[in-house]
Amino acid sequence: MSFNYLQPGKPAVFKDRFTTKVTECIKPYESGDRGAVGILGLPASKSSISMSMAAEAPQAIRKALGSYSTFSATKNHDFKDDVLIDFGDVSVHPTDVEATLDRLHVSVGEMLETEACERYIMLGGDHGVSFPSIHAFQKKFGRVGILQWDAHHDVRNLDDGGRTNGTPFRSLIEGGVIRGEDLVQIGIRDYSNAAAYDDYCEEKGIHVYTMDDLDQQGILQVVEKELQRLADQVDVIYLSVDMDAVDQAFAPGCPAIGPGGFTSRELLSSVRAAAMHEKVKAMDIVEIDPSKDVRAITSRLAAHVMLRFMYK
Amino acid sequence: MSFNYLQPGKPAVFKDRFTTKVTECIKPYESGDRGAVGILGLPASKSSISMSMAAEAPQAIRKALGSYSTFSATKNHDFKDDVLIDFGDVSVHPTDVEATLDRLHVSVGEMLETEACERYIMLGGDHGVSFPSIHAFQKKFGRVGILQWDAHHDVRNLDDGGRTNGTPFRSLIEGGVIRGEDLVQIGIRDYSNAAAYDDYCEEKGIHVYTMDDLDQQGILQVVEKELQRLADQVDVIYLSVDMDAVDQAFAPGCPAIGPGGFTSRELLSSVRAAAMHEKVKAMDIVEIDPSKDVRAITSRLAAHVMLRFMYK
Amino acid sequence: MSFNYLQPGKPAVFKDRFTTKVTECIKPYESGDRGAVGILGLPASKSSISMSMAAEAPQAIRKALGSYSTFSATKNHDFKDDVLIDFGDVSVHPTDVEATLDRLHVSVGEMLETEACERYIMLGGDHGVSFPSIHAFQKKFGRVGILQWDAHHDVRNLDDGGRTNGTPFRSLIEGGVIRGEDLVQIGIRDYSNAAAYDDYCEEKGIHVYTMDDLDQQGILQVVEKELQRLADQVDVIYLSVDMDAVDQAFAPGCPAIGPGGFTSRELLSSVRAAAMHEKVKAMDIVEIDPSKDVRAITSRLAAHVMLRFMYK
Amino acid sequence: MSFNYLQPGKPAVFKDRFTTKVTECIKPYESGDRGAVGILGLPASKSSISMSMAAEAPQAIRKALGSYSTFSATKNHDFKDDVLIDFGDVSVHPTDVEATLDRLHVSVGEMLETEACERYIMLGGDHGVSFPSIHAFQKKFGRVGILQWDAHHDVRNLDDGGRTNGTPFRSLIEGGVIRGEDLVQIGIRDYSNAAAYDDYCEEKGIHVYTMDDLDQQGILQVVEKELQRLADQVDVIYLSVDMDAVDQAFAPGCPAIGPGGFTSRELLSSVRAAAMHEKVKAMDIVEIDPSKDVRAITSRLAAHVMLRFMYK
Amino acid sequence: MSFNYLQPGKPAVFKDRFTTKVTECIKPYESGDRGAVGILGLPASKSSISMSMAAEAPQAIRKALGSYSTFSATKNHDFKDDVLIDFGDVSVHPTDVEATLDRLHVSVGEMLETEACERYIMLGGDHGVSFPSIHAFQKKFGRVGILQWDAHHDVRNLDDGGRTNGTPFRSLIEGGVIRGEDLVQIGIRDYSNAAAYDDYCEEKGIHVYTMDDLDQQGILQVVEKELQRLADQVDVIYLSVDMDAVDQAFAPGCPAIGPGGFTSRELLSSVRAAAMHEKVKAMDIVEIDPSKDVRAITSRLAAHVMLRFMYK
Amino acid sequence: MSFNYLQPGKPAVFKDRFTTKVTECIKPYESGDRGAVGILGLPASKSSISMSMAAEAPQAIRKALGSYSTFSATKNHDFKDDVLIDFGDVSVHPTDVEATLDRLHVSVGEMLETEACERYIMLGGDHGVSFPSIHAFQKKFGRVGILQWDAHHDVRNLDDGGRTNGTPFRSLIEGGVIRGEDLVQIGIRDYSNAAAYDDYCEEKGIHVYTMDDLDQQGILQVVEKELQRLADQVDVIYLSVDMDAVDQAFAPGCPAIGPGGFTSRELLSSVRAAAMHEKVKAMDIVEIDPSKDVRAITSRLAAHVMLRFMYK
Ligand SMILES: [Ca+2]
Ligand SMILES: [Ca+2]
Ligand SMILES: [Ca+2]
Ligand SMILES: [Ca+2]
Ligand SMILES: [Ca+2]
Ligand SMILES: [Ca+2]
Ligand SMILES: [Ca+2]
Ligand SMILES: [Ca+2]
Ligand SMILES: [Ca+2]
Ligand SMILES: [Ca+2]
Ligand SMILES: [Ca+2]
Ligand SMILES: [Ca+2]
Repeated sequence: MSFNYLQPGKPAVFKDRFTTKVTECIKPYESGDRGAVGILGLPASKSSISMSMAAEAPQAIRKALGSYSTFSATKNHDFKDDVLIDFGDVSVHPTDVEATLDRLHVSVGEMLETEACERYIMLGGDHGVSFPSIHAFQKKFGRVGILQWDAHHDVRNLDDGGRTNGTPFRSLIEGGVIRGEDLVQIGIRDYSNAAAYDDYCEEKGIHVYTMDDLDQQGILQVVEKELQRLADQVDVIYLSVDMDAVDQAFAPGCPAIGPGGFTSRELLSSVRAAAMHEKVKAMDIVEIDPSKDVRAITSRLAAHVMLRFMYK
Repeated sequence: MSFNYLQPGKPAVFKDRFTTKVTECIKPYESGDRGAVGILGLPASKSSISMSMAAEAPQAIRKALGSYSTFSATKNHDFKDDVLIDFGDVSVHPTDVEATLDRLHVSVGEMLETEACERYIMLGGDHGVSFPSIHAFQKKFGRVGILQWDAHHDVRNLDDGGRTNGTPFRSLIEGGVIRGEDLVQIGIRDYSNAAAYDDYCEEKGIHVYTMDDLDQQGILQVVEKELQRLADQVDVIYLSVDMDAVDQAFAPGCPAIGPGGFTSRELLSSVRAAAMHEKVKAMDIVEIDPSKDVRAITSRLAAHVMLRFMYK
Repeated sequence: MSFNYLQPGKPAVFKDRFTTKVTECIKPYESGDRGAVGILGLPASKSSISMSMAAEAPQAIRKALGSYSTFSATKNHDFKDDVLIDFGDVSVHPTDVEATLDRLHVSVGEMLETEACERYIMLGGDHGVSFPSIHAFQKKFGRVGILQWDAHHDVRNLDDGGRTNGTPFRSLIEGGVIRGEDLVQIGIRDYSNAAAYDDYCEEKGIHVYTMDDLDQQGILQVVEKELQRLADQVDVIYLSVDMDAVDQAFAPGCPAIGPGGFTSRELLSSVRAAAMHEKVKAMDIVEIDPSKDVRAITSRLAAHVMLRFMYK
Repeated sequence: MSFNYLQPGKPAVFKDRFTTKVTECIKPYESGDRGAVGILGLPASKSSISMSMAAEAPQAIRKALGSYSTFSATKNHDFKDDVLIDFGDVSVHPTDVEATLDRLHVSVGEMLETEACERYIMLGGDHGVSFPSIHAFQKKFGRVGILQWDAHHDVRNLDDGGRTNGTPFRSLIEGGVIRGEDLVQIGIRDYSNAAAYDDYCEEKGIHVYTMDDLDQQGILQVVEKELQRLADQVDVIYLSVDMDAVDQAFAPGCPAIGPGGFTSRELLSSVRAAAMHEKVKAMDIVEIDPSKDVRAITSRLAAHVMLRFMYK
Repeated sequence: MSFNYLQPGKPAVFKDRFTTKVTECIKPYESGDRGAVGILGLPASKSSISMSMAAEAPQAIRKALGSYSTFSATKNHDFKDDVLIDFGDVSVHPTDVEATLDRLHVSVGEMLETEACERYIMLGGDHGVSFPSIHAFQKKFGRVGILQWDAHHDVRNLDDGGRTNGTPFRSLIEGGVIRGEDLVQIGIRDYSNAAAYDDYCEEKGIHVYTMDDLDQQGILQVVEKELQRLADQVDVIYLSVDMDAVDQAFAPGCPAIGPGGFTSRELLSSVRAAAMHEKVKAMDIVEIDPSKDVRAITSRLAAHVMLRFMYK
Repeated sequence: MSFNYLQPGKPAVFKDRFTTKVTECIKPYESGDRGAVGILGLPASKSSISMSMAAEAPQAIRKALGSYSTFSATKNHDFKDDVLIDFGDVSVHPTDVEATLDRLHVSVGEMLETEACERYIMLGGDHGVSFPSIHAFQKKFGRVGILQWDAHHDVRNLDDGGRTNGTPFRSLIEGGVIRGEDLVQIGIRDYSNAAAYDDYCEEKGIHVYTMDDLDQQGILQVVEKELQRLADQVDVIYLSVDMDAVDQAFAPGCPAIGPGGFTSRELLSSVRAAAMHEKVKAMDIVEIDPSKDVRAITSRLAAHVMLRFMYK
């Protein structure tokens, strides 16, 4: 039997026949599928130093994506034919954080092994997820360069609390997964990091840009200059977007909010500029705690960041 | 390819191997299916006199259902084998309220025509949805008796605003769909109705119980007495649960909240008592506006009401 | 020129021709007016020990009153012909608390001098407003008996902070305005008062009932017994309803909330019982801070308390 | 009798003798009145595609207006002698959206027939109100040019849902009320519109400026250039301000919020620039849902937009 | 130098000279101290199945305690001379949940070794903290009987997620720390547990009382009967108060809220009854997530529960 | 006895051995102490015209300070050796506003008499605290110049409400404490002040810069020019930061919020520029009402403002 106004098991949504929603272009992965961008949720935040519900972000960002269409007026292009593949969310372990990191690593690797997509988006979770994720990319593609939007260095020592959301880039460097000179950090903020870790960055050759540096040199100029530099030395570039790089007025839903960061327009234009680069194959978006957000503003911004990455 | 920790396109949920969640027992209707209870969303609230987002309730209540299991300790029974069939939500019209009422009526009728289930739950929406819903039951089953939990009579005149959430029982009586003596209202509150509509109820033979009446006569006693009376004269009994019958402390998410209503335990026990009756075949739950709720308390209570109806 | 759908300067409100709202029966006082109940706002809360926005309550309660009708199903009576007179809100002094107390006293007195109404409701503000208000009643009517719903004695010493919301009944007794034996306190809670003030109450002959006492003796029984006792010795009885006597689940908008108090139904029935007494001529409702409330639940309860007092 | 600190029926407000509040200059219209600007509320949002409480905005914006004074430091002028006339809010129909649109149309027309003011502000409601409002202006004044601040084109097809908040400019063009070339849209955002409607705009000659276009050409430059163009071809210019043109950080209370829009300062300066133009006679402000707002931030911004329009 | 109105480094608090606040009686433990009750924070919630911020509860409950005084009107006694000793909060491990459980166990043990107090209160954290805490009591005192207020059995299998907040009593039984017949569960709710775990409880001889059982047998009667039974067979009795035993209206700040539980008065009176028993030496309060609470209602209730335990 | 994971009486906090938190450098004043910056809380807001909980700000800002470290990446300097001295909060009078102002004045004076620090930060409270605070500086240091960030002049007449938060600079000028030409106001906004007070400023020679003036002349340019001018004529410069100078999107927690103000980056850079000046010895931060804030965004911004002042 068929129904006039019902689709069993489904919520009813208004459909304008001429509008394609981004979510209409997302399909669950099935063996053999090919698509433009793969999406994977890494719902882990028990590695956070302060208590965080960032594990709920992958679903919140996907929901926010539901209000966007596939048409870019700026590019005058409708991306409705770009297939997006959703690999789902990794099932994490309730009590074993190391096991969770391992599951994340395995899952990103398995996704890459499908070779289903040209580029990938990983949705955290806290910043701790970048370590297993980037590690998987390194295994698959070789030398990885990283452009990191962040107020913080995230190179804390591993002894005081294990692999937390404050340590991913330390883990990557110490583990020999990446080299210091292949890491670029933009948006680092005053009074938000320790001197010792600033020293560590210098020692390891990490390129660090504070908000003041960006004000003076221009965000887009820095992004382009550094991508070019990285491109010459690495096999693949990975964008790691910690949303707390953004000013708290524009991203109130991060665990560690503060004033003096990027505006929403600065974030969007810099991600767009970076995503245009040939060697950029991956992006993660981390550190959104939906339970702390206001009207999902931060998840909406993250969803828009995804669009800037996906549609180029 | 198969994955270790991923189900493509799905959020990851912790699974305890010995626990069956209610939502695991719900399946979308497919032709030929048979089940214990059918569930249908009636996401319409543009008929509300005051602005209401009650249209968002069917999804909110289903989500709340997700945290319940199938085991009743009181009955010492696991209802995991009871199949629940989800007919989805009716697609409403954005601007034509009458067309929406018609779609609701058609859809409830189509669901009943499947004869898939023994009993049905309709999730509003505002109370305006009860008119088309009960009308469909009357067409299918004959004379309908109604037990209505409500602070309000909902028999307003139709001239001042058309068919609003203040008129469903007036519409049913004036339209000859039900008889006054087949309608029982419990939980009517002082200073929440007009004298003229109290007179109307009396005139039509509606049985009305105020909170004071219930205090004196006992809620369960009234419910049982009236169900027995109705059973003698009707073909089928329909429960209509307006959540604003409940005290605002226990159901803060209704548009028209106030003090002096049912406690959560009084609501649950009275619905359970009513649901046990042979002739009770249907229930609607209406007037929850999730945007006004606190931690989904009202939707959680509604989900528990569903359980008391479904599992008997 | 006249308009079809406009009343210049007014918000549009849905009007059901058969429903009379309580607010339709309220008129601003004009010289010579007579009415059943007078309403006066005492928007003062700078006397609160802890910071409080209770000064915003008179407007919040009046707004909550707007959703009630004039018909009592229990009494089967429509009170639409009872004229209610609104004397407005007292203009308080921004920085001089003593001047504010004086203005409250003068204003209550001026209202009483109009002899416009049989009974009066004063809307606080914090409990500090009861001192000037009751003082005005004493000047006009003679010996005043008081029935106070409260978790607290409010007989703190005056030296540690002047006339705060913790001192009104001390001020009344020390000032010779009332006698200890004319004051009855119901709902006093454990761990919410000092031993010294319990002693003070005993010394002055104040009749004190804790929540435990009420559980054992019955709220309505206590109210009736004490009103009868007071009636024999005073000229007029004044009800003073501190909303924090109510459990925090039912009145979350009080500055000093806590568990273990009255339910909404206990408050409403006890106020109704008290209001029926001949000698009860006045009531104040205090200690609602609308900025802390949830969906105006506490103001809605206060408005219902007003109805129980006004319509008898 | 007169009172010392009371104005019966009125809330008490602190009065600084040297400060004139904007609200002190607003009076309800009476026959024969003349004023600088007329204000009319169009509290309709049942035409919204997604559920919206925008109908509550006219009262929220008026309340926000209450905290502003009449003095502009920039212009060094006190506008306290400018009379503002409040025509009230249109009484909408609870269930008949088309009837509501008709009432809005009739009411704007009746207001214009009074010829009481030189310029007018209409407060929505959702964007659906602009169709009946602009239609009334066209009937009274002839050819109308429109400058629209919006993230969206609002030229959806009329078949999928009737006249919603997504269709006003389609309705105006299809109904022959305005010409495509007389419509200018600024602030259009990527991934927020369909390709088909972008095509429609081009086809009809609508001038469209995306956020990127504005970044490159300058907001004020675009506004001035387009106003000049419109002025040459139309009789009157109407500003239509959909608040969702503003970035979600500055206007969190719109139903369809998102990142990447105007800052508050960009909105205010562009409205001020437009309002200075001779032919600009009207403005509407739409798509604020006060129930979703944070501390009335969006209504406060809207009130400031009114000031920029009213006082020139 | 001394100051008139300043105490360097301290916030200023209003002091009524006759009132003793509970917090004035709490002192940090120093070697050799003796007191009536010891307080210890167990701020761990990374063992929660669903994400939880319950780790923030010890500080929230202590803050709520700050508004209570030491005087019980019911007992007519001022407990200001009862010394309360605060052992602080256990420093948990950011990423190693098993290490955290070990630290909790060690710390409770170290506290007991001080023999500083007669009785102890442990503040969770999620319910996972009860396993290491009770284990420490068993080591120190021998056979432990437990009275558990809870909607849930908390005897899940340990394989599906390790030692979570769903497993403490399973861990205790499987680990031979307690015997099934020494565990009493009150407040178990329908549709909130699995049949398999109900079977497990029966098998192990755990005494289980559902809300329905309590309604029929009386809460206080059950508590007294079971304490007497336990007292005959154990060395010490431990109360474990999972706040989600309380109805969501009275305890909205628990991770797993729902309707149909205890009222605040039922919880307080049953804890008071239990605390009076000679063999009751310890209590934990768990499962409050302050980030989800409304005006700290749940923490305030927990603080009152502490008072009922401490002062007998 | 010592504990492994406990510090009695203290909450547990994660400690990274290489990170110094600002709060670790703050110590309560003891006689003879010397430090870089003194901090004093002025928790008074009963002088506010509209009801305000700004009295809670000193504790909220201190708490926000707790998440910052001592290292400035921009200056490449770790300020961990700068001693910060906390003089605590002034104990205010619950009901006597004038007495409170006097206590503030006495306390600031006593702090200055210690000569413990080179520079001082006073945390309001409402803007009324600046009068007694600046008065104390004038007594100690002589002629005081003031740079005031504010949307408002705060030179209201004293007759309509006494010394409110709208009068501090009037009080200072009328009382002969400062001269008009020694006061600079930046960020003054349209429609937020009265013409009479604009005239007053002109008359007294106050230098006033509206947001428009700053847009045109450059904020940093204005700040530097005016500091230089002041430096030539005064003994000491005092910064008075009313947080409502900031746009409501960046500082939602002020009582009098509005659009069109400073961004967070503009505030931070202008305070940093001012703080660098030799003669700047003091700063107050006022008009934050934590009860109205969103995720403590405004307090976090205020804490960052402190850092910009403290560390130079
Ligand atoms: Ca990071
Ligand atoms: Ca970060
Ligand atoms: Ca109803
Ligand atoms: Ca109802
Ligand atoms: Ca009181
Ligand atoms: Ca009280
Ligand atoms: Ca629009
Ligand atoms: Ca729009
Ligand atoms: Ca539990
Ligand atoms: Ca539980
Ligand atoms: Ca100011
Ligand atoms: Ca100001």
